Amino acid sequence: MNQMCGQQSIRLEQPPHVIGAASVVGKKESEGPLGDLFGIICEDDMFGEESWEKAESRMQTESMRAAMSVAGKRAGQVRCLFGGDLLGQLIATSFGVEELNIPLLGVYGACSTCGEALALAAMMISGGYADCVATVTSSHFASAEKQFRFPLGYGNQRPLAATWTVTGSGAFVLASQGGHVRITGVTMGRVVDYDVHDSMNMGACMAPAAADTISRNLRDFGRTPEDYDRIITGDLGYVGQTILMELMREQGFEIRQQHMDCGIEIYDRETQDTHSGGSGCGCSAVTLAAMILPKIEKGEWKRILFVPTGALLSTVSFNEGQSVPGIAHGLVIEHC
Amino acid sequence: MNQMCGQQSIRLEQPPHVIGAASVVGKKESEGPLGDLFGIICEDDMFGEESWEKAESRMQTESMRAAMSVAGKRAGQVRCLFGGDLLGQLIATSFGVEELNIPLLGVYGACSTCGEALALAAMMISGGYADCVATVTSSHFASAEKQFRFPLGYGNQRPLAATWTVTGSGAFVLASQGGHVRITGVTMGRVVDYDVHDSMNMGACMAPAAADTISRNLRDFGRTPEDYDRIITGDLGYVGQTILMELMREQGFEIRQQHMDCGIEIYDRETQDTHSGGSGCGCSAVTLAAMILPKIEKGEWKRILFVPTGALLSTVSFNEGQSVPGIAHGLVIEHC
Repeated sequence: MNQMCGQQSIRLEQPPHVIGAASVVGKKESEGPLGDLFGIICEDDMFGEESWEKAESRMQTESMRAAMSVAGKRAGQVRCLFGGDLLGQLIATSFGVEELNIPLLGVYGACSTCGEALALAAMMISGGYADCVATVTSSHFASAEKQFRFPLGYGNQRPLAATWTVTGSGAFVLASQGGHVRITGVTMGRVVDYDVHDSMNMGACMAPAAADTISRNLRDFGRTPEDYDRIITGDLGYVGQTILMELMREQGFEIRQQHMDCGIEIYDRETQDTHSGGSGCGCSAVTLAAMILPKIEKGEWKRILFVPTGALLSTVSFNEGQSVPGIAHGLVIEHC
Repeated sequence: MNQMCGQQSIRLEQPPHVIGAASVVGKKESEGPLGDLFGIICEDDMFGEESWEKAESRMQTESMRAAMSVAGKRAGQVRCLFGGDLLGQLIATSFGVEELNIPLLGVYGACSTCGEALALAAMMISGGYADCVATVTSSHFASAEKQFRFPLGYGNQRPLAATWTVTGSGAFVLASQGGHVRITGVTMGRVVDYDVHDSMNMGACMAPAAADTISRNLRDFGRTPEDYDRIITGDLGYVGQTILMELMREQGFEIRQQHMDCGIEIYDRETQDTHSGGSGCGCSAVTLAAMILPKIEKGEWKRILFVPTGALLSTVSFNEGQSVPGIAHGLVIEHC
């Protein structure tokens, strides 16, 4: 059964259904425009743990448990789990999911990880390799600042192009039947490197990758932007959105009507001091679980293109003067 | 087409073939017992680059190019690439494969990454999602010591239980037809945490995960150890091997006759001062490419179980006092 579509895409002949989704967020996210939609809100960003990393692991455990509960599945019924985060060697995931005892396939695509995980999970179900697969991703403002920039106590200033790492974890459970949301297609992203060297302007690093994946998706499936109710990027923020629009126009596509960005949706620009918007492995995941999937479930949106975006850097490569390449993976999600 | 097998395994109905494999190693590896078998040997461990990380990226580029050359494929014919390494945020892979322009799905399972990548690549081919998929993984002694332990200049002493990170990269190209090596089954591993806290004894951290995956594989497929010509772990070393044997006996399996460990094979214990053996994301990958696959290709071995083993730690979790859990993914590889 050949399911290849165009150069980089896959048309899933037996589209898997998303039968459970859950979001866990911190205090700041609960105060944003989507605050009322999130499933679990923790007022204490330590989540009762003794380090930021353990707090992030705790979020993954909680979001997984909540998503499995919505799906009506026990851990023993989930055949495998695709998980990832932004920390070195995926420690938030390793420690976050170990008590669930589900076979783990660790994935990393920076903030595009949620898209990569869902794409692989969808293929596992559609290919008959599993009857139930879960995905989980997370980010935490404090663990990410410590990993990539400065410890919080240092109190460094942030430029206006900077985004704010979302404290949150989103988990999803996929199966071959159930509910009204299904994943019908995947576009795998390439590493796109525009030689941007500013780790405080992730939008500019990721926008070229988003443009590459979106235009590739449209060409591979022979669609126009109007074929999607929304084209939703992960965390480009205001700066990245502007660049994306320009790059898409250069490719001959106008997506102003359809474009939405999870990083723009999640915080209030006027009052929350998050500059260019939200970012992180949790940003697109919690927005998908809390805001996007419910609209598809109800049929308000019939078909969307969901494109989590990632900036591929570590402090090591960045400090050695290397660029910050981007990557983005696309998922076609439809009401059924 | 239900391909699920037992609790954690998959029986591939249309087993993909490994049509190209390549290994790139450094000087020390070339001086070991497998030295004559490796494809590309670089006398300068910097590989002509200006940092250890860039050197590791260079190894990935070279091993990918060599594997594609063996397979007779251009980069444009490889539909996607599963890649990973041990560094934070997979920078060796991001920068190593970007010039190839192949869609990238980043994976992380510590030193089990080679197994995870091959498992997912095999499922993509078998499921009809792609006609040609590649995998690449790497490790570099110097970049790993810098990432996880001490900079080389510090000259710290290494305990006898410690393993030596292999400088090397292995790449593989899979397709639905070609050659005499195919992947017929997969056993996905769980995170197994025996609460070991010694990052200088990775064998002890990983052996429980290896035992879990191997015994699961035997039960899921209804096989005995005798059904495999070899059961080959990734990098348990001498210390880990001893523990594995004991744990397997507790599970009711005697694998002394079949067991082999890439970390034990790759260095000479007497002369190379590598203590418990070799380790790293490159260890099992280069041994598979250089030594194991040729034996299967020739029919010398009819069926093996290949089980790369990973220790899930980062300096952050380790310094915060967390344990070092293990994970191992199993692949059934057969002559055809």
